[in-house]
Amino acid sequence: MKILGIDPGTATTGWAVTEKKDGAEIKAIAYGHISTQPQDSDWKRLKEITQDIKEIIHTHKPDEAAVESLFFFKNVKTAMTVSQARGAILLAITQEEVPLYEYTPLQIKQALTGYGQATKKQVQSMVQRLLKLEKPPTPDDTADAIAITICHHQSRKLQSLLNK
Amino acid sequence: MKILGIDPGTATTGWAVTEKKDGAEIKAIAYGHISTQPQDSDWKRLKEITQDIKEIIHTHKPDEAAVESLFFFKNVKTAMTVSQARGAILLAITQEEVPLYEYTPLQIKQALTGYGQATKKQVQSMVQRLLKLEKPPTPDDTADAIAITICHHQSRKLQSLLNK
Repeated sequence: MKILGIDPGTATTGWAVTEKKDGAEIKAIAYGHISTQPQDSDWKRLKEITQDIKEIIHTHKPDEAAVESLFFFKNVKTAMTVSQARGAILLAITQEEVPLYEYTPLQIKQALTGYGQATKKQVQSMVQRLLKLEKPPTPDDTADAIAITICHHQSRKLQSLLNK
Repeated sequence: MKILGIDPGTATTGWAVTEKKDGAEIKAIAYGHISTQPQDSDWKRLKEITQDIKEIIHTHKPDEAAVESLFFFKNVKTAMTVSQARGAILLAITQEEVPLYEYTPLQIKQALTGYGQATKKQVQSMVQRLLKLEKPPTPDDTADAIAITICHHQSRKLQSLLNK
């Protein structure tokens, strides 16, 4: 089962594809981030981000995708640019017909560290340990994208145990 | 010149197509609103909204499109759902290769009423008068979508006078 994880943003969008085969551990297939230029118009930046995501989907053929659900930000400006990118990204993934799942930041932190209030640094270091990466993935957006795929693998596993 | 105007929202998106021929007044071609169900997931709602917008584009073949630019909302929840819908809508219009223009709420109110702090009701009544509609267009989202097309027609006219 290959999962695409996305941490949306207009300036920087983190992405990751991880895989879990039955009985095996989760493996990182590819991850990175997409950056856009602040001087470009919104529609141009959204087009670039979603074209890159569609290319990632064509290259890695994920079975499912997971994105953070909308949650409350302290900063309204950040809330708006993240939400705008999220809208375009949800549409792009839907157009590629990849089934979409959403998790709250609390669920993601809980799944990774067992603690809903974990810091960015704690999530990053758990991502590194779980995937046996040589160094912590950067930027945070990439680490968060990997984290959401791990959360989804775990949630699927739990679901399959519950259904037995 | 046919203009598509959109007032984005996840629950209700207003839309309008108006036309202005040289020397003639602005004419309403079609307008309405797209509603989605709160119990549906975000991606399903965004897919519905953007499919409807693409259909409107195919039917009316607008030359250009105009959307309100991101601005500050008092309510963060509203800010996020509007921004999310806006992101999907900008992407959908871009995918249809319709050139996109953005105006601030201040520019739109100024263009319609000559007054940047005009109320929703004042905008609605100016829309009705300018387009000689039998009754004020409802809901507000539809009136706002018409208003943004009028703002764009006026801005184009001003631009062409300045270039003479």
